[in-house]
Parts: sequence; structure tokens; C-alpha cells
Amino acid sequence: MAFEESIKKASIQSYEGSRKGDTEEEIKEIQNYIRNAKIVVPNKNGIKVEVINEVLKRFKIPPAEHLDVNTNYADFSRTPAISKAKIAIDQSDADLVIARGRLGIPGSGSFLVFMDNKSRILTAASSPSHIIHKQSLEKTVYRETLDALKKVGFKEEM
Amino acid sequence: MAFEESIKKASIQSYEGSRKGDTEEEIKEIQNYIRNAKIVVPNKNGIKVEVINEVLKRFKIPPAEHLDVNTNYADFSRTPAISKAKIAIDQSDADLVIARGRLGIPGSGSFLVFMDNKSRILTAASSPSHIIHKQSLEKTVYRETLDALKKVGFKEEM
Ligand SMILES: Cc1c(O)nc(CC(=O)O)c(C)c1O
Ligand SMILES: Cc1c(O)nc(CC(=O)O)c(C)c1O
Repeated sequence: MAFEESIKKASIQSYEGSRKGDTEEEIKEIQNYIRNAKIVVPNKNGIKVEVINEVLKRFKIPPAEHLDVNTNYADFSRTPAISKAKIAIDQSDADLVIARGRLGIPGSGSFLVFMDNKSRILTAASSPSHIIHKQSLEKTVYRETLDALKKVGFKEEM
Repeated sequence: MAFEESIKKASIQSYEGSRKGDTEEEIKEIQNYIRNAKIVVPNKNGIKVEVINEVLKRFKIPPAEHLDVNTNYADFSRTPAISKAKIAIDQSDADLVIARGRLGIPGSGSFLVFMDNKSRILTAASSPSHIIHKQSLEKTVYRETLDALKKVGFKEEM
């Protein structure tokens, strides 16, 4: 029962036309879920997980584990990063998946998404393609993870 | 025939395990599509369109038109901003929709997406919720549009 209550409330507000955007309470709920989740990162190698864990540590969030699943099929979908996260949800008992892949069509750059175990998107961040920004994969994944956490109100002094 | 060729090529690369990320060519294809598209922005009011057009002008992209469609249903989906874009695609003859809405669950902040007339995602950008960053809607939409265009390699001097 993490988000059902806030989704139900927000849906009623949207339906009635009274929705004024996200609330402090909803954001706190997301932070709370992330703090208490068993986290996995689907990936071919462990590099991304290490980088992500460096960022999680900055916010005192417990580390993620590497999940060894084949996510090649995700690139055939309309939203590869989101599909990769769903594949990981379906093949692990994690509460939270942090997946990274292409945002949309080839050329659309990268997307890093936090997804809960019901396949719902909690937060995300994106970067241009490698050939545009020319930074290392490590630096890019670090920045994206940081952006995604800041997006839902995580602050370093917490 | 804008993206079919690059999607086919990238899919083969992904299948064979030789995909090394986005290519210059794919990005140029996206830029080219955006430059020559009839663009609409679904929205209740015209404010967002004006702001988006200010940014498009900086890159010499022709202005978008306001599209008056009811997108309230989008907030009931798992990805409200993406659903909003699809609703607009289905109810207009535009080549490109720029839609803005919530990224995921309540609290997950905003997402601005560029979608082609086959519902494919070309680029996107996101911001934290209003109550976190406390900037005006105009400033936020301006920044998101700029980010989304820079993500696919648009530069001011072009
Ligand atoms: C398969 C794949 C792809 O084609 N493009 C990207 C974006 C990039 O090049 O930065 C990514 C992250 C990816 O996993
Ligand atoms: C309906 C809706 C919603 O609930 N939350 C947001 C994110 C925010 O508050 O910044 C947006 C953009 C929105 O359109």
C-alpha cells in the first residue's frame, strides 16, 4: 500500500478538474518508498550499479544489487528504458528497479528510470546521446541518478 | 519515411549485440524531422504554446500551433505526459506533438515530450514538481523545451 492512496486521490482531483500538480505528501511517499526498497539494477555488467550506489550513498539510501537478466528485447520497444525496467520487475522480487537505456527512437538519447514493483514510474532523468555530450558512461549515469533523486526532493543534507 | 530506416538498422544492431549507442546520422534525422514538421501543442490554454514557440524560434524552428483537445483522461494512465501526446496525435493531422504533463505517479514531477505522428518518442525533458523548484510555469516549460532540443543536438548557432 505505498501509492494506491495518493493515486486514487489524484485521480479524483484530475477527474473533477481540481488537480493543481504534485503535493508535498506525494513526494514524501516516493522518498519513503525509495528509502525502504530492495533495489536492483538490470545490466550486462556491474559498472552502472557501482556508480548508482555511489549516488544512493550520498543520500543514505541502501545500495542496489546487480540483476543479471537479458534485456536485449527492450530495444525493440517504443520506450526501451521503460521496457528494460519492466523486464527486470517481471524477473526479480525487487521493490524498485533502476533501469537505464534509450529514451525512444534511435538518436533520442538515454533515460534512467526508477520503477516500483507494480511497474509504476516514480522518477527519471535523461541525457543526450554519448556522441553529443562526450562524457564517460560513469559520469553520465552518476548525473542521471542524482537528477532523478533530486527530482523527487532528495537533498544531500537529509 | 523519416525514421523507419534508422529504426530497422538499430534493431538489427541490437539483435546482433553490436549496437554502440546513438549515431550522428540518427540525431540528424530527428533534427530534420523537427525542422520540417507541422507542430501542435495540446493544452487547455495558450500560455505553454507561446513559451515553447519562443524556444523554437531560438533554433529557427517554425512555430507550433495550439491544439484544443480534452486530455484529462491522460492523468489516469501510467505515463500521463506520453498519453497526452498520443491523444493529440490521434486527434490532429500534425507531424509532431509537443506535450507536457506528469511523468508517472503523483509526485513524480513533469515531463515534456516530442512525439512524431506514429507515436514515437523523439526527445524529452523533465523537471521536479513545482512545489520543489518553485519557479514559474513559463520558466519551467522554457527550460524543458530547451533541454529537449539540446538533447538531440540542436545548437543556437545553427
Ligand atoms: C541501445 C541504446 C541506444 O541505442 N542508445 C542509447 C542512448 C545513447 O547513445 O546515449 C542508449 C543508452 C542505449 O542503451
Ligand atoms: C496533472 C499534473 C500533475 O499531477 N503533476 C504534474 C507535475 C508537477 O506538479 O510539477 C503535472 C505537470 C501535471 O500536469
